[in-house]
Amino acid sequence: MDESSYQRISMTLEEMAEHDRVFGALAQRTREFIDASLHTVVDHAEIEEVTAMLEAMTHRLTKEADPGYLGVKIGPDGSGRNHGNAVVGLRNPFAPPLRVEKTKDGTAFAAFRLGAAYEGPPDLVHGGVSALILDQMLGEAAAAGGAPGMTGRLNLTYRRPTPLGALSAKAWIHAVDGHKTTVKGHILGPDGEPTVEAEGLFILPRWAREAMAAAKAKKAGHAFE
Amino acid sequence: MDESSYQRISMTLEEMAEHDRVFGALAQRTREFIDASLHTVVDHAEIEEVTAMLEAMTHRLTKEADPGYLGVKIGPDGSGRNHGNAVVGLRNPFAPPLRVEKTKDGTAFAAFRLGAAYEGPPDLVHGGVSALILDQMLGEAAAAGGAPGMTGRLNLTYRRPTPLGALSAKAWIHAVDGHKTTVKGHILGPDGEPTVEAEGLFILPRWAREAMAAAKAKKAGHAFE
Repeated sequence: MDESSYQRISMTLEEMAEHDRVFGALAQRTREFIDASLHTVVDHAEIEEVTAMLEAMTHRLTKEADPGYLGVKIGPDGSGRNHGNAVVGLRNPFAPPLRVEKTKDGTAFAAFRLGAAYEGPPDLVHGGVSALILDQMLGEAAAAGGAPGMTGRLNLTYRRPTPLGALSAKAWIHAVDGHKTTVKGHILGPDGEPTVEAEGLFILPRWAREAMAAAKAKKAGHAFE
Repeated sequence: MDESSYQRISMTLEEMAEHDRVFGALAQRTREFIDASLHTVVDHAEIEEVTAMLEAMTHRLTKEADPGYLGVKIGPDGSGRNHGNAVVGLRNPFAPPLRVEKTKDGTAFAAFRLGAAYEGPPDLVHGGVSALILDQMLGEAAAAGGAPGMTGRLNLTYRRPTPLGALSAKAWIHAVDGHKTTVKGHILGPDGEPTVEAEGLFILPRWAREAMAAAKAKKAGHAFE
């Protein structure tokens, strides 16, 4: 990954909205299919027919394919499009997806539902899934507060089991020291009490710092033109 | 979750093998479909047809469904069946799945491949996915060494970016103190060098300790019959 990963897509706003509607629906129906596949008790013949159909559909999708990853693209409106992201990605069926509400002082909040696909111990959210969600939430808070970075350290404390079902998560910037941001957060159970607590250190890579400094210098230069 | 979650399934060995073949294939074809959906560039009409077919297939699967989660069941051969597990579950399309090689002195190793569905920053494994995999690996090492537990604490240090593609992970018991086990581990990049390091504390819940003590006492009692 470097600066060139963040490319602007060549679509109009209308094309982008239509693209997102079509591919967003595919991902959502895939999430529902996955959930159904973990609860179904239909007979083996039925499962095998569905499996064969799925294989044929995969062939249809791979007829024209881009071997690259979705990455992060910039929309015509300047919005970031991390559609492949494993937690918030519109197109990623693994992502619940979280819809994160952010504030400019560096807070993030999301209410979400975790079903059968996120199980670890019986009826409970996998401890690593809680870590996955908190890593994303802490990173979102850091970026929202103007102090973004990649995860450098992540410390998780599991206070109580997290049941599958309706949950929420919060994160907030604790301290900013140059290009290093300390963020805290937790997952809240259905009773609103924390189940898993996290503290993370997010570090902005050198290439990103240099790109941001260059953009700032260019902007300052324009002011004197 | 409590002791009653771990039920023995009522299948013969042959029925279990057939069940696992049929449902394992469904999950594997689903993983391939998800990957295809993240790489495809076929036109919108084609995506919408596939989406409609998928929705119809979900209805077929939900005609007979169990609202409960897969949990952990015990096979007729005494084997643990955590088929819904988000990292190692045979039936869970989210799980790569990891096939973990374990030793009785408390080590775990897995070689695996992470594709488009596990992306965070462009072309890189999501930091939270690395945490998810390490949580499972550390727990597997603890259990393999006869000192199992649920995650109490998990500390992650991100040394270098982890590229999507072929990876491996190792974990080993560092110390055992009563019902608390400290485990260490790391993810290794394609060059065999660690990218993410983890240290975790795994704690055996009281109900599990009591159940294990009762089973031990019963066994000792039998010896005197």
